[in-house]
Amino acid sequence: MYGTVHFKNHAIGIVPIDENGNVILVGQYRFPLGQYSWEIPEGGGPHAAPLLESAQRELREECGVVAKFWTAILGMDLSNSVTDERGTVFLAWGLSETEAHPDESEQLQIARMPFWDAVARVKRGEIRDGVSVAALLRVALMALQGELPDPIAKAIDV
Amino acid sequence: MYGTVHFKNHAIGIVPIDENGNVILVGQYRFPLGQYSWEIPEGGGPHAAPLLESAQRELREECGVVAKFWTAILGMDLSNSVTDERGTVFLAWGLSETEAHPDESEQLQIARMPFWDAVARVKRGEIRDGVSVAALLRVALMALQGELPDPIAKAIDV
Repeated sequence: MYGTVHFKNHAIGIVPIDENGNVILVGQYRFPLGQYSWEIPEGGGPHAAPLLESAQRELREECGVVAKFWTAILGMDLSNSVTDERGTVFLAWGLSETEAHPDESEQLQIARMPFWDAVARVKRGEIRDGVSVAALLRVALMALQGELPDPIAKAIDV
Repeated sequence: MYGTVHFKNHAIGIVPIDENGNVILVGQYRFPLGQYSWEIPEGGGPHAAPLLESAQRELREECGVVAKFWTAILGMDLSNSVTDERGTVFLAWGLSETEAHPDESEQLQIARMPFWDAVARVKRGEIRDGVSVAALLRVALMALQGELPDPIAKAIDV
């Protein structure tokens, strides 16, 4: 009765938080939605590849950033009535800059924004990408429930 | 370069919380994912229809429940690299039972679960549907930030 869109990748989202409590966001024009969208760094890894390696490559290529510390904070499925895309979200900290190698097909802007400002944008419906919404809310809840690693908790001033 | 899957509906999610602090969840087999999935009540309304009316119809038809009070708590876009499905999440309370009229194509189980147990399932990756994950995390954050309507805050024992 239904068709299924098979995604060959496992979706990955990253919440990178720097020592000043900023989250790194990526801005791009989303053609299907006809709007400019600020999102957490996201990408897809082949199912066979270790997710952490894919996440590290994505953060380096999209944002020119490497992170010392990583932890998986959320697993979710996307739009699952017609697709089978699975997603995993990582929290990344201990950031340092490297050289960015954006895909040639991607026209990306990179911005750093205080973490709670990003959460406020989720609440106002300004950050709307599903993975970004879930990921930022997850980190906010971790903050309020005392589940964040100390360096991040201090940086974002819980 | 990319194809776009055009969804004709606006996705709707509902977090219905009863006077005992339970959230109503819907269980069904998701064929694209090959797994059984517990989710908040969800559905799609035609773009032209008022979203609240669509949400009320969905809660009545899927769960056999009507709610006295409704408020929109989250706007998000789903899987937006290849689709253009927009979504709105409502919080619903002041619940009472009515007669259920499930769609004939849907084989649904209905369950009531303490709200914080549902949040714990999100954290453990057991509730994985993207809209459900974002919606439950949003309500949890509202609870901890004192943004919930009083009757819900009391019922879920913030």
